[in-house]
Order: sequence, then structure tokens, then C-alpha cells
Amino acid sequence: MKKNKKSALEEKEGIHLNAISNEASIARIKNFRKKQPSVASLIQDINSGDKIALSRAITLVESKNRTHLAQANQIIEACISNKKNTLRVGITGVPGVGKSTFIEALGKYLTGIGKKVAVLAVDPTSSLSSGSILGDKTRMEALVKDENAFIRPSPSGDSLGGVARKTRESIILCEAANFDVILIETVGVGQSETAVHGMVDFFLLLKLAGAGDELQGIKRGIMEMTDTIVINKADGKNKQATKLASIEFTRALHFYPPKENGWIPMVLQCSALENEGISEVWQTIINFKKATLNSMYEKRKYQNKFWLLQTIEDNLKIRFYEDDAIQEQLKQLTVQVMNAKVSPFVAAEQLLAIHQKELK
Amino acid sequence: MKKNKKSALEEKEGIHLNAISNEASIARIKNFRKKQPSVASLIQDINSGDKIALSRAITLVESKNRTHLAQANQIIEACISNKKNTLRVGITGVPGVGKSTFIEALGKYLTGIGKKVAVLAVDPTSSLSSGSILGDKTRMEALVKDENAFIRPSPSGDSLGGVARKTRESIILCEAANFDVILIETVGVGQSETAVHGMVDFFLLLKLAGAGDELQGIKRGIMEMTDTIVINKADGKNKQATKLASIEFTRALHFYPPKENGWIPMVLQCSALENEGISEVWQTIINFKKATLNSMYEKRKYQNKFWLLQTIEDNLKIRFYEDDAIQEQLKQLTVQVMNAKVSPFVAAEQLLAIHQKELK
Repeated sequence: MKKNKKSALEEKEGIHLNAISNEASIARIKNFRKKQPSVASLIQDINSGDKIALSRAITLVESKNRTHLAQANQIIEACISNKKNTLRVGITGVPGVGKSTFIEALGKYLTGIGKKVAVLAVDPTSSLSSGSILGDKTRMEALVKDENAFIRPSPSGDSLGGVARKTRESIILCEAANFDVILIETVGVGQSETAVHGMVDFFLLLKLAGAGDELQGIKRGIMEMTDTIVINKADGKNKQATKLASIEFTRALHFYPPKENGWIPMVLQCSALENEGISEVWQTIINFKKATLNSMYEKRKYQNKFWLLQTIEDNLKIRFYEDDAIQEQLKQLTVQVMNAKVSPFVAAEQLLAIHQKELK
Repeated sequence: MKKNKKSALEEKEGIHLNAISNEASIARIKNFRKKQPSVASLIQDINSGDKIALSRAITLVESKNRTHLAQANQIIEACISNKKNTLRVGITGVPGVGKSTFIEALGKYLTGIGKKVAVLAVDPTSSLSSGSILGDKTRMEALVKDENAFIRPSPSGDSLGGVARKTRESIILCEAANFDVILIETVGVGQSETAVHGMVDFFLLLKLAGAGDELQGIKRGIMEMTDTIVINKADGKNKQATKLASIEFTRALHFYPPKENGWIPMVLQCSALENEGISEVWQTIINFKKATLNSMYEKRKYQNKFWLLQTIEDNLKIRFYEDDAIQEQLKQLTVQVMNAKVSPFVAAEQLLAIHQKELK
């Protein structure tokens, strides 16, 4: 129980009645405090690939404490870079599709060919479901133990915006710690897929072959974001169904407008459980990178810009909707607007005037 | 040189030495001013279906003059209602697809069965292209002369938000003036289709049968918004191509997720020029209304709410981006963020702090 050694309880236990005069204890505590790494040493350790320093920095990023956040910002500013030898891969799929098994298989394959792999997650519901996603690390037992892998569950947070921001900053830290491949998992609740799509180079949709209409369960907009569909569990008696699903998805993809970067999304099959088809998935991602290299780097630039403007606009909205002077008025006017008693534009003007006054 | 007559120079020319003593002129001007209708009389006339009053009110809505806008708001507030016997139909299609001919054919069909039809447009580029859309009213010659039709070109305005707002207020005014069917045309520049989709009950995509891949020219997201695809110019030697295109579009529609209201989009054929298939288009819209009545009224409520929040959020952004203290900083920081010199989140914080200070 490594964790207990660092807990507050452990420290208290060490302080006996005669603690104050216990020079040895005081020295030990002082020494422990000194060991809390400085921002500078965290940065240095991250750059040398130290996973503990990386973890600590991500904890600062995820903290709600202002001091921690200021430290986090310093670290981010020092770690941000323009590294081009990294790949950010988004992976989505409904629960039950085998995301954990797939990520473990892909992760192990990658460390096997000499890559360093970080696994992050965007799951805005994780605080409620107490970390269903990646929380149960036993599901990735082999990858967790792999020294070239780093696994971090989804940050908790009430808003998707917050979770997305933290994950995006974690990508910066992971890349600074020399991880080459960043896998970002999402369960696709609400807009989380769009958020993940906005921070990755390659977006992968994991599917299962079922009995009925394969397209039924696909959320609006996902197909247009998808760079490749991977049908998982293509094993045993599923093989025939997988083949049929593959044909249907391929046809479906044809009916979407072509991508700007010229990439034609495809449908692959794999069995994460039996470790089949994993190298083909990676080869496809590599082919994608080769085929779209320039537009990939351009995309990263525009993703950076997108997050700048998105953060600004999110904050402007938060400041408005959290304005005490607005809340009651907004509630009442919304009902009136919905029932066509007041025009939306007139109501908006009234509310903006109240907010403007409040800020002044 | 019509324009010159209205210029400031021309006016000066008209003021002769004895102008001030010209009692007849003064009386005429005073009389003209008196004739400018009051807000109260405009409201009354709109409600009695007077097209001139309707036109004048829309001109107030489109004005940039503060007094006019205050009057416009008063009129809107008086005209807003919960009428359920109206239908708002959005029509999109690329230039050349025959939108004007189609709208004229549909409009004439509707006035023929006793409906009052208003035709509006959302074309954010119209100020640049000097009203390409609906501007050339000769293209709808028969409809323009129809006393049960009202045609208004797209408001000019630099932003889609502004154009959309004005069109949405015009819908309120047209419905107050007892128009039952509001046709809203868009050329689909940028996000204008999404804006139109957000203000109509039914969204119609007009297409042409061509030689190649019919889906090639379809913009992302349009198919998911479409309630019905109408293939126009299904006449003469186009008939065979139309049939093939119809099959392809029907198949393509199947590959999109089902709509929440249960409506299954379909593909129709028509020849607006030969007046064929127009009644079938209308019958489909009527079927849609019958099949989705409750969700249609619910949708209107949420469209109202959407426009309230959208207007608020647009204005918060405009206030930020037009803040003089922000502009130079934003430009510099955007470049740094794009090139991964500064984190988007840190840059956003800096800019928000500057803006906050400015407002105080």
C-alpha cells in the first residue's frame, strides 16, 4: 500500500506526545517538506521522462487550489513545445465495445515496438460514476505495469470544458515527458467526442458487430469525425457478423462528404482479446500520418487557436450565467421567450444590460 | 445616375435663397412627416394584413438607427404570438439549382389553394453581391404581383448573426400579418443553413441530378438537417438522371441516424419550370406537420430559447472581440498559441483579465 505512506494519517501517527521535542521527527518532517518538489525540479524531471513527476504535475493541473494552478501554468508554459514526432489518437465507442481491452492491446503493441505510450481519458461523468473509465486499472493490468506506459484516469470535473482543458494540458505534459503516442479515450457522453476530436490527430471509432442495423447506435456527427472505424471482437462466431458490419460501415462512410485533408476513412477488424488486427490498426494510423502530414501540423495549429478562443468564450459565458443578478431574470425570461410572450432578442438585450451594469 | 440625386451635394443645390419663405414647400414637408406612421398604427395595419405596413416594420427591424430599433422592438413585442397555424419552411440549394423558380412555383401553388405566402431570405453575402438572392425580383415575376404573396430580399448585414436575427424578427412580423406559410431561402454560405434550420419547422434541400457522384457537392451537416430532398429540373432528358440520383440520395439518407421526431426524410422529384411535382412537395410538408405536430411546437419553443441564448452569447463575444484593449494582444497571443509558444489556456486567462479590467 504505497499510497498510505504519503497520507496525512501516516504523518500524524508519527507525532507522539513528546513530538515537539523530538528533534529527529522535526528533522524528518522538514526533510519531507523539502522533498515536495519545486516547480523547477518538476519541469526538469518531466523532461527526463520521470513518470512520478509527470503524475504530480497533472495533479497540479487538476487541482482547484489557486497556488497549484499557478504552479501548473508555470509548468505548462515550460513544457509546451512543437514536437512533431508525437501522435495523438482519440478512441471512442459505447460501453461494452471493449475499449479498455483494445487500448491495452494497442498500448502493449506500441511499447513492444519501442514506443512510449500515455493513456488519458475525457469522461465528464467520471466524478459521478466514480471513475468508471480507466478507473478500474485492473482492466489494463499488463499496460499499467509497463514502464513505457503511463495511464491516467479522466480528470474529474463538473463541466466538459474543465475536463477537456485538463486533458489537453496533460497531453502537453506527456509529450514533454517524451511519450510518443497519446491515446485519449472517451465514452462519448454529450459533446465529449467533439472535444476529443478537437485535441487529436487521428480519431478512431470502435464498434461491435451486432445482429441488427449497425448504424442505429451511431451518434450524430461521429461518422464525419471518424478517421477509421475498427470493429472489435472479430473473433469466434462473431467473424461472419463482423464481415457484414464491415461492408455496411464501408458503404455508410462513402455517403459522407470527403475530408479536407484527402484521407478516406476505412473500416478495420480486430480482436483485442486475441491480439489480432492490432498492428493493422497502427499501420493505418501511420499511413494516415504519412498521407496527411502537412495538414496534420496545420490542424494542430488551428486546434491550439480553437482552444484559445473556446476558453475565452466559455469563460465569458460562465461569467454571465453565474452572475447572481442574471439568474432569476434569466429563468423567468426564458419561460416567456419559449412561450412567445417576449422576443428572444428583446429579452437578450435586457439581460445583457443587467450583466453589463453588474460588471461595472 | 440615380444615386447622385440623393447626394448631399444635390440637396445643397436645391436650397435657393428664397427657400425658407416657400410656405407651400414647408407645408408639404410637414405633411409628409406627419404621414410617417406611428408605431401603434403600424402594429394595427400589420395585424390587418397590410403589406406596406409589414414592409415598413421590416425596414425598421433592419435599420441601424437606434430610434428605429427601439420602434422595431416595440412592434416585435406587440406582434409576437403563439400562432400554430403557420408553417416555416427553409429552402437551401447551391446557385443554379433553380431555387427562385422553385419558390415561385411553390408560392403560386400555395396562393392558388388559398394560402398567404411570405418569402424571406438569409444571405449574409447579399450586401457584397448586391442582393443576388431574391434581389432580382424579375425572377419571381408572377409571385411578386400576387396580392397574397410577400417577398422580401435578404437583409444586408456584415454578420450572419445580424442577418439571422433580422430574418427571425421578420418571420414574427409576417405571421402577425396573417401569412400562413413562410418560405426562407438560403444559399448556404458558411453557417447560414444552420441558422435557417434553427428558425424553421421544415428544412428542404433542393438538388439537381448531375452526371457524377451526386453526393460530392453536399456540404457537411446538411444531410442531417434535411427533412426532404427535392431534385429539381426533373424534366426532358434529365428524367433518367433524376431517377438515378433519387436512388442514390435515398440510400444516402438511410445512412444517417434517425431523427428524434421519428420523421424519415425522403427524396422527391419536381420540375419547377413545368410546374410538376410541386403539389407533392407541399403534401409532404403537410404530412410532416401532421406526423410531428407536437414535437414541431416543442421545437419552436426550443428554437426561441436557442435564439435567446445565442443572442446573449454572440453579444458577449462581440463585446470581447471589439474591445480595443484586446485586439492587439489577441493578435499577438494567437500567433504564439498557434506555434505552441504559449498555452491556449494561459493566453485566454491573460486576455480575459485585460477585458475584465476594461469593463470595470
